[in-house]
Amino acid sequence: MPKPEPKSDPGRFAYGGLERVIHERARLSILASVAAHDGGLLFTELKGLCQLTDGNLSRQLTTLAEAGLVETWKGTRNGRPQTLVKLTAAGRKRFADYIAELEAVVTDARRSAAAPTGRTRPSTA
Amino acid sequence: MPKPEPKSDPGRFAYGGLERVIHERARLSILASVAAHDGGLLFTELKGLCQLTDGNLSRQLTTLAEAGLVETWKGTRNGRPQTLVKLTAAGRKRFADYIAELEAVVTDARRSAAAPTGRTRPSTA
Repeated sequence: MPKPEPKSDPGRFAYGGLERVIHERARLSILASVAAHDGGLLFTELKGLCQLTDGNLSRQLTTLAEAGLVETWKGTRNGRPQTLVKLTAAGRKRFADYIAELEAVVTDARRSAAAPTGRTRPSTA
Repeated sequence: MPKPEPKSDPGRFAYGGLERVIHERARLSILASVAAHDGGLLFTELKGLCQLTDGNLSRQLTTLAEAGLVETWKGTRNGRPQTLVKLTAAGRKRFADYIAELEAVVTDARRSAAAPTGRTRPSTA
């Protein structure tokens, strides 16, 4: 049975590892996409996978590139200009660290949900 | 062995369940704290657990209360005015839904990290 959480453990729920540049939902979505596609993704593919507009995707990619998390490559495919987006090595490491912190959030929440509440609980359907 | 992710599965990494009002780090921190303390937390306890300033905690609590996720109670303890913060029933449900989506992010990222990359991988130390 989980122990009740103490009420004074400084920063116990601060989740400092949730790096702001990664945590924003659109950027998290982009990073999860490129992390899952080792060869990189085209701008148009990313747009679809993340359901972002051109403008928003462009802005977020600039932010992520400036933070050193992704790199973008300009090229052509079938004669048409394309942008390829890849996770950097540093980006892969920082994304992994971020995900480890997310796991801590999930673990905390699961433990809370499992803890006895002293109230009547709905039967598990 | 995990299948490679297709590059065109609309919204596959959009994570629409990451509700903005919950996802912001300070608010996520507050919600995780109160979710772990069924009887609620005093403002001062929350401040410590989340490592937030008075001003920031106040603002975030207003946002969370307006969104129906938490409720605040004014009272006194040992003669001193105090604020007690509790998760609402709706807040508990929405926080659980949010956490389920976070778990999907973690699962996606873990699968990416486990997928063969065709590159030399560092030996696991």
